[in-house]
Amino acid sequence: MFRNNYDNDSVTFSPQGRIFQVEYALEAIKQGSVAVGLVSKTHAVLVALKRNAEELGSYQKKIIGIDTHLGVALAGLAPDARVLSNFMRQQSMSSRLLYSRPVPISRVVNAIADKAQVNTQHYGRRPYGVGLLVAGVDETGPHLWEFQPSGMVLEYKGAAIGARSQSARTYLERAFEEFVDSSREELVLHGLKALRDSLAQDKELTVANTTVSVVGIGENFKLYDGDEVGEWLEKLGNVQSSRGGRTGEEAAESMDTSE
Amino acid sequence: MFRNNYDNDSVTFSPQGRIFQVEYALEAIKQGSVAVGLVSKTHAVLVALKRNAEELGSYQKKIIGIDTHLGVALAGLAPDARVLSNFMRQQSMSSRLLYSRPVPISRVVNAIADKAQVNTQHYGRRPYGVGLLVAGVDETGPHLWEFQPSGMVLEYKGAAIGARSQSARTYLERAFEEFVDSSREELVLHGLKALRDSLAQDKELTVANTTVSVVGIGENFKLYDGDEVGEWLEKLGNVQSSRGGRTGEEAAESMDTSE
Amino acid sequence: MFRNNYDNDSVTFSPQGRIFQVEYALEAIKQGSVAVGLVSKTHAVLVALKRNAEELGSYQKKIIGIDTHLGVALAGLAPDARVLSNFMRQQSMSSRLLYSRPVPISRVVNAIADKAQVNTQHYGRRPYGVGLLVAGVDETGPHLWEFQPSGMVLEYKGAAIGARSQSARTYLERAFEEFVDSSREELVLHGLKALRDSLAQDKELTVANTTVSVVGIGENFKLYDGDEVGEWLEKLGNVQSSRGGRTGEEAAESMDTSE
Amino acid sequence: MFRNNYDNDSVTFSPQGRIFQVEYALEAIKQGSVAVGLVSKTHAVLVALKRNAEELGSYQKKIIGIDTHLGVALAGLAPDARVLSNFMRQQSMSSRLLYSRPVPISRVVNAIADKAQVNTQHYGRRPYGVGLLVAGVDETGPHLWEFQPSGMVLEYKGAAIGARSQSARTYLERAFEEFVDSSREELVLHGLKALRDSLAQDKELTVANTTVSVVGIGENFKLYDGDEVGEWLEKLGNVQSSRGGRTGEEAAESMDTSE
Amino acid sequence: MFRNNYDNDSVTFSPQGRIFQVEYALEAIKQGSVAVGLVSKTHAVLVALKRNAEELGSYQKKIIGIDTHLGVALAGLAPDARVLSNFMRQQSMSSRLLYSRPVPISRVVNAIADKAQVNTQHYGRRPYGVGLLVAGVDETGPHLWEFQPSGMVLEYKGAAIGARSQSARTYLERAFEEFVDSSREELVLHGLKALRDSLAQDKELTVANTTVSVVGIGENFKLYDGDEVGEWLEKLGNVQSSRGGRTGEEAAESMDTSE
Amino acid sequence: MFRNNYDNDSVTFSPQGRIFQVEYALEAIKQGSVAVGLVSKTHAVLVALKRNAEELGSYQKKIIGIDTHLGVALAGLAPDARVLSNFMRQQSMSSRLLYSRPVPISRVVNAIADKAQVNTQHYGRRPYGVGLLVAGVDETGPHLWEFQPSGMVLEYKGAAIGARSQSARTYLERAFEEFVDSSREELVLHGLKALRDSLAQDKELTVANTTVSVVGIGENFKLYDGDEVGEWLEKLGNVQSSRGGRTGEEAAESMDTSE
Amino acid sequence: MFRNNYDNDSVTFSPQGRIFQVEYALEAIKQGSVAVGLVSKTHAVLVALKRNAEELGSYQKKIIGIDTHLGVALAGLAPDARVLSNFMRQQSMSSRLLYSRPVPISRVVNAIADKAQVNTQHYGRRPYGVGLLVAGVDETGPHLWEFQPSGMVLEYKGAAIGARSQSARTYLERAFEEFVDSSREELVLHGLKALRDSLAQDKELTVANTTVSVVGIGENFKLYDGDEVGEWLEKLGNVQSSRGGRTGEEAAESMDTSE
Repeated sequence: MFRNNYDNDSVTFSPQGRIFQVEYALEAIKQGSVAVGLVSKTHAVLVALKRNAEELGSYQKKIIGIDTHLGVALAGLAPDARVLSNFMRQQSMSSRLLYSRPVPISRVVNAIADKAQVNTQHYGRRPYGVGLLVAGVDETGPHLWEFQPSGMVLEYKGAAIGARSQSARTYLERAFEEFVDSSREELVLHGLKALRDSLAQDKELTVANTTVSVVGIGENFKLYDGDEVGEWLEKLGNVQSSRGGRTGEEAAESMDTSE
Repeated sequence: MFRNNYDNDSVTFSPQGRIFQVEYALEAIKQGSVAVGLVSKTHAVLVALKRNAEELGSYQKKIIGIDTHLGVALAGLAPDARVLSNFMRQQSMSSRLLYSRPVPISRVVNAIADKAQVNTQHYGRRPYGVGLLVAGVDETGPHLWEFQPSGMVLEYKGAAIGARSQSARTYLERAFEEFVDSSREELVLHGLKALRDSLAQDKELTVANTTVSVVGIGENFKLYDGDEVGEWLEKLGNVQSSRGGRTGEEAAESMDTSE
Repeated sequence: MFRNNYDNDSVTFSPQGRIFQVEYALEAIKQGSVAVGLVSKTHAVLVALKRNAEELGSYQKKIIGIDTHLGVALAGLAPDARVLSNFMRQQSMSSRLLYSRPVPISRVVNAIADKAQVNTQHYGRRPYGVGLLVAGVDETGPHLWEFQPSGMVLEYKGAAIGARSQSARTYLERAFEEFVDSSREELVLHGLKALRDSLAQDKELTVANTTVSVVGIGENFKLYDGDEVGEWLEKLGNVQSSRGGRTGEEAAESMDTSE
Repeated sequence: MFRNNYDNDSVTFSPQGRIFQVEYALEAIKQGSVAVGLVSKTHAVLVALKRNAEELGSYQKKIIGIDTHLGVALAGLAPDARVLSNFMRQQSMSSRLLYSRPVPISRVVNAIADKAQVNTQHYGRRPYGVGLLVAGVDETGPHLWEFQPSGMVLEYKGAAIGARSQSARTYLERAFEEFVDSSREELVLHGLKALRDSLAQDKELTVANTTVSVVGIGENFKLYDGDEVGEWLEKLGNVQSSRGGRTGEEAAESMDTSE
Repeated sequence: MFRNNYDNDSVTFSPQGRIFQVEYALEAIKQGSVAVGLVSKTHAVLVALKRNAEELGSYQKKIIGIDTHLGVALAGLAPDARVLSNFMRQQSMSSRLLYSRPVPISRVVNAIADKAQVNTQHYGRRPYGVGLLVAGVDETGPHLWEFQPSGMVLEYKGAAIGARSQSARTYLERAFEEFVDSSREELVLHGLKALRDSLAQDKELTVANTTVSVVGIGENFKLYDGDEVGEWLEKLGNVQSSRGGRTGEEAAESMDTSE
Repeated sequence: MFRNNYDNDSVTFSPQGRIFQVEYALEAIKQGSVAVGLVSKTHAVLVALKRNAEELGSYQKKIIGIDTHLGVALAGLAPDARVLSNFMRQQSMSSRLLYSRPVPISRVVNAIADKAQVNTQHYGRRPYGVGLLVAGVDETGPHLWEFQPSGMVLEYKGAAIGARSQSARTYLERAFEEFVDSSREELVLHGLKALRDSLAQDKELTVANTTVSVVGIGENFKLYDGDEVGEWLEKLGNVQSSRGGRTGEEAAESMDTSE
Repeated sequence: MFRNNYDNDSVTFSPQGRIFQVEYALEAIKQGSVAVGLVSKTHAVLVALKRNAEELGSYQKKIIGIDTHLGVALAGLAPDARVLSNFMRQQSMSSRLLYSRPVPISRVVNAIADKAQVNTQHYGRRPYGVGLLVAGVDETGPHLWEFQPSGMVLEYKGAAIGARSQSARTYLERAFEEFVDSSREELVLHGLKALRDSLAQDKELTVANTTVSVVGIGENFKLYDGDEVGEWLEKLGNVQSSRGGRTGEEAAESMDTSE
C-alpha cells in the first residue's frame, strides 16, 4: 500500500541515505540458485547448483571460465553476468597483450566493480542484477572475491551467494579451520558439502545439477560439468540419483535462466 | 485495479528484484503462433504454424533463413524479429569476410543476446518483443538455441515457443529418446507431431499453415513452404483439409502479424 | 474513466505484451479514406477514394508515384506518408545509381518497415500514423504489399486499408479467382468495384473522388486522376454524378488531409 | 474538468489515433486575423486583415514577400511564421544559386511541410503555431497553397485562414466560376470582397488594416500596403473610414502580434 | 485552486492554442520599471525609470548602449537583457567586420527575435523574461522597435513597457502629432512627460531615478545618467526633489534588479 | 500544505512571471554568515564573520583572494563559491596572458554573471546557491560588486549579504558620508562596525571569527586572518573574548560549511 | 506521511534554500563505521573501525593509501570511495609526472571537492554517498582534511566521521592541547582512544577490527592492519579479546560494505 518515493532509480537517496534500486538488485541475486566459493593455500574452487530450464535444454551456465587462471560463478540475471564476464575477458586479454601476463585477480575484480558503480550513479541505467564469485590464481596465490551490484567487492576465504546460501556460509564458517590448509581434493569436497547444505530437503546433488571448477597454483582453471562431476560426487559418497522430475525448489530458482 | 509502480521501463527493479517490462515482453511471445525446434546428431529442424493474415495475403514468415547453415523461427512481434535476423545476417557475412568461414552458431546467438541485453539496461528503449529458435550446423555439429528478450540464450535438444507451446514441449520430452538418434525424415516428422499437439482442437496442419526447415551436416538450410510442405504432411499421414474458414484460434495468434 | 498506464509511449509493454501506441497509430489509418490494391499475373493496380478538402481545393493525394515501376496508396496522416514516400524515392534513386536497376519491391518495402520499427522501440518518437499499399513490378513480376506503423509488411494478392475497407476486402476475397488471371482492364474494374463496395450508401464513384493507378510488366506506373478517371468509370457503367454537395461520410474521412 | 491524458506532446496518439497537440496548434491559427488567397489563370493574389498593435505601432506583417515570384500570408504566431519564411528564403536562394532558377512553388511548399512534420514526430519540439497561404508563379503558372502545422499542404484555387475565415471561403466558393478567368484587377477585388465578408459587423476595410499582394505570369510579387491599398479600396467602392477607435474584434485577433 | 495542465513548458499548446509559459514571461516584463521610446524624423529617444536597489548601490541599468548608432531600454529580468544585449553587440561587431557598416536596426532586432523564438519551441529552455525597446539610426533613418519574449518584434513611433506603462502609452498617443515632427530637445521632453505620467502618485522624476538616451541622424548614441539628466529635468521644469526615502512603488518594481 | 506547481526547476515561469528556483537560491545565501563590503576613493574592503565548523577545524573560508587586485566574500553554499572563484581566477589569468593586464573588475563580474544566468535558463542545472561580494581595484579605481544567483550584478559603495545582513546595511547607509572619503584604516573600521551590528546579541567579533581583506590603489589584495585580525579589533576597541563555547547563532549559519 | 516535493534530485532547491539530496547523502556517511583523523606538528594519523562482512571475508577497507605521502579513511558507500580514491591516485601521478613532486594535499582535496560539486548541480547524477578523511604530508607539513558529498572540504586538527563519531570528536576536543605537540606514538594512541570512545558499550578494539595509518614529515604513509595493529593496541593497554561473535552494532554499520 505504501508508496516509496525514493526507489525508482539509482540516483536518488532516501532520507536515510539508502539507494533502494541497488538494494532491489540484491534481491535478484537471492532468486538465483546457490553458488559457493572457497580457497586454500594452493587452490580456489567454485561449485554451483545448476537449474534445468527444461528436460530438453542445456543447463544455464553457473560457472564461466574467463581465462586460464580465472573463472566466475554467478547468481541472478544471467544476461547481466554474460556482459560482465565478456568485459573481464577483454580485460584479461588486454593484460596479456600489453603486459604479457595474466591479469591480477584484484585488478580485474576492481574493473567490474568500477563498471558497476557507474550504473548506480548515472540516470538511465540500472544496477547489474547479478552477483559473482570470482576465483583465480595470480602471482600472489589463489583468491576468491565476491562482486555485488553496488560495485562492492570483497575478498573471502569462503563465500556463498544465491537462494538458501546462508546454509552454505554456515558450513564454511564451521569448516574454515579445515579447508584453508586442505588438499585440492578436500577443498572441492568441502565446497560440495557446503553446496549440499543449501539444497532443499528433497533434493540432492547430481551430475545433472552440479558444476565444479578448480584453479590452482601452476594449474589452469578447469570446469567439471555433466559426467565429469560424477567422480567428485562419488568421492562425496553421494550416489547420483536417477530422479528426473523437477521440484518446486527449482522453479523458485528460475531467475538465473528465465530472464 | 492495482497500480504497479515498477513496470514502466526496463531500468527499474521491483522490490523483489524483478524487471517487469522484460516479463511483459515474454507475454508478446506467448501471443504468437507456435514454433518448434529439435536436433538429432546430424540435423536441426524448425517447424512452425503460420497464420493467414487474410485470405488474399501471404503468410507472415515464421521461419527465416539467415545463411546456408543457419535459420530462425519466431514467435511475437515480427518487425522485431526482422531487425534481429538482419543483424544475424550481418554477423554471418562479417564472419565469412573476415574469417572465411560460416559464423559459429553459439557466436551469432550470443551476439543477438548481447544486443537484446542492452535494451534491458538503458532507458528509452524497450526489450525486443519476440522469441527466437535458432537452428544451425557448424563445425561442432547441429545446434538449437532459444533466444529470449531478456538476453537469455540456452541450447536445447528440443524446444517450443508461442501460444500453446507447452503441448509441443510435452511431446518432445516424451519423444526425446527417439528423435536424438533419428534420421532426417524422422526428425521432421517428430517436429510436425509436436507442432500438431499444440493445435487448437478444431485445427489441423495444412500446406497453407505449416512451414518446415531443415539444416544438416553437409546439407544447406532448406525451407519448405506451401506445396513443398505437402510431402511432409503426407508422410505424417495428415491429409490436408480444404477448410478455408478462419477460426478463433487464428485470431488469438494475431500478434505475429498485426504489430 | 479507466486510465491505461501503458499507452503513453511506444517503448512500454502492457502486462499483456501489447504496445498500445502502435495500436493507436492503426486507428489513424482507419480514419483515412479507403484505398484498394490488387495484382494479376501481369499488373498491379491501386484505386483510392479521394476526399475533397474544400470546393476550391485540390484533392489530397491518395496515390503517389515513387518511380516508373512503383507507387503507393495511403490511408491516415498524409504528412507521414510524404516522409515515407520521399524515403522510398531516395532508396529507388540509390538503387539506380549504385546497381543500375530499379529497386526490387520487397527491398524498398523492407526499408520503410525497418525505418518504422525504429519509431516503435526508441523513446521520443511516435509510430508513423499511416498505412500504405505499395504496388510495383520488378524482375519477379507484379507485387502488392501492405505496410503498417508497427513495421509489419506483408505481401498480398488483394488488400484494402482505411475507413470501411472491410467491404472492399470482402469483394476481393469473393473475386479472387477471377482477378488473378484477369486482363489489365478487368483488374482495374475489379479494383473499382471493391472500392465502390466501401462507399457510404449515398455516395458513388466520380471523376472527382476516384484515383486509379496501374503498373505492369513492361508498362510504367501510370496515375489516372480527374478526367482521366472518366474512361474507367464509364467502363464500370458508373455515370459520374453532378452532385457537388459534401456528405457526412467525407467529413468522417477528414484525417487524410486535416492533419 | 476532464483531464485528457494524450494531449501533452505531439508524439503521443490518443486511443482514437489523434494527435491533440497538432489540433491545438490549429487553434492558434484561428486566433489570427483573416487572410485570403485566390488564383486565376494568370495571377495569384493574397489579401489580409492587419491588426494594429497600438496606435503608435506599425501593423504586424500579414503578408511577407519571399522572392520575386513568391510570397506568403499568415495567421497565427508571427514569430513562427518568420522562422518558416526565413527558411523559404534560404530554399529560394539555394535554388537560384544551384539551379539558376526560381524555386518551384510546390518544392518550397513541400520543404516547409517536411520541416513542420518533424516537429510532430520528435519529442521536445512543438508544432508550428501558424498557418500559411503561399502564392507564387513558376513555370507551371500561378499557384496557391495552404500550409498547416501538421505538415499538411494542399493546393487551392481559393482559400482563407484565420478568424471568421469561413465567410471568406463561402464567398470564394460562390465566386469561383468568375474569378478563375478574371483579370488581375478583378482577381484582387474578388479577394477583397471575400476578405470583407469575414469582417465583424461594425468593421470595414481601410488603408490601415488591409494588405494586398499580387504576383503574376511575367509580373513580380508586389505588396500593397498603407496608401497603396487605397486605389484598390476605391475600386472596391469602399471609402476608407476615419474611425480610429479600436474594437473588440481586433482584441480577439491579438495572437498574430502578441506572441 | 485550478491546476492548469498546459502551462509548464513552452512546447505545449493549450487546447485554445495558447502557450502559457510565453504569456507568463510577459508578466515578468510588467514587474519591471517603466521604459519609454519614441522617434521623430531625425532622432530616436529612450527614457526610463531606474530603481535604486539600495541607498548605497548603483542603479540597475535600464538603458544599455549597444553600438554608436544603437541602444536598448529594458523591463524585466536584467540578466536576460544582458545576454540579449551582448548578443546584439556581437551582431553589430560582425556587421562592421564583414560588411564595414553599422548593422541595420531591423536586422539586429530580427536576430534577437529569432534567438528568442527558439526558446519557445525547444524543450528544456525558458522564454526570455524581458522586454526591450530598441532605438537606433541606420541608412533608413531613426527607428524604434519593441521586442517581446515570444520572438515578436514590431516597429513603433512611440512605445512603453513595464509597470504602469499604459499611462505613458496614452500620453504618446495624444502627443503623436507633435513629437513626430519635433526637434531633438522636444522629443526628449515628450519622452520624459510620458515617463512622468507613468509614475506613482507620490513620485517624481529625479536625477537619481531617470535615464535618458538619444541617437540621431549624424549623431551617436548618447546616454544621460546621474547629473547629466539634470539639464533635461530642468527643461521639463521638474526640480529634482531631495527625497531619499524609498517608496512602495519602488519595491514593486524590484524584478529588474532582484533576479 | 499548498503545492506550488511552478517551483521545481529554473526554466518554468510562475503565472506571475517569477522563477521560484532562483528565489529559493537566494534563501541559501540568507543561511550563510554575514559578509560586508565597502569602498572609499582609494580602497575596497571586505570583512566577514567566519563560523567555526568544530573546535578542531579550520574556519570555512569567507573571503577568497582571486588575484593581486581582486578578492571575494561569500555567503551561502561554499562549494558553489569555490567553483565561481576558480572561474574568476581563470578569467584573471587569461587577461594577464592575453592582454598583459589585470582583468577589469566589471569584466570578471559580468563573466560570472553570464555563467550564472545560463543555469537559470537551461533544464537540468540549478542556480548557484551563493552570493558574492567582489572587491577589487583596476584602472578606474576601487570597486565593490554584489553577485546574485540570478545572474544579477550591481556595483555598490557599501553592501552586506548573509544572515542578519540588514543591520550591517543600515549601518553603512548611516555612515556613508563618512566612509567614502575615509582613510584605509577608517574604512576597515567602518566595515567592522557594520559587521558587529549584524552579530547576535550574545556574540562579539574575535580573532577567531573575523576575517578582513583590503585592496587599494597601488596596494595588493591582502587577507587578514587569525592573529592578524587582532590589530584591527584592538583599533575597534573590541578586546577579543576568550569565550570558546558555540552559540545557537552559529548553528544557524551552518550552511556555509555544511553543504 | 508528508511528501517532500523538493528532495528527489540534487538540482532542486527547497523553498528554504536547502538541497535535500545532498543532506540525504550525509546520512549514508552516518551509516558507516567510525573513522578518526588527527595531526600533530610532525605527523598525521588515521584510525578506523573495520566491520567484518563475514567470518570468512576480509574486512572492508576503511583506510586506503593513495600515495607515499597521502591516504584516506572513509565512512559511507565504499564503491563511491573507491571511485574518489582512484581519482586522487590519478591526480597524484599527474603531479609527479608533470611537476616532479608529490601533489600538495590541499590541491588533491580540492580536486575531489570540485568533482563532487558537479554531482550536486547537474541532473542525472547523485551526490557521492561517502565522507573522507584525507591525511597527508607535503612541503607545508602534515595535514588533515574532511571531504563531504556537497563538495565541502575543511582542514582540521582532529576529526571523526561515521556512526557514533560524536564521541570521538568530544575526545579529540578535550585532548587537543596534548596531541598537537605529541610524538608519533602518542598521536596514534590519542587516535585509538578517540576511536575507542565511539565504540558501542559491549565492544572493544581488536587486531581484527582496527586499522591504523601514519604519515609524517620524512616518513611515508604506512598502513597497520591485522597483527601489525597488535603492537598499537598493546601500547593502548587494550588486550585483544578473543570474542568472535558479531554484535548488533556491527550490523548497523553495514553500509560501508553492503552497498
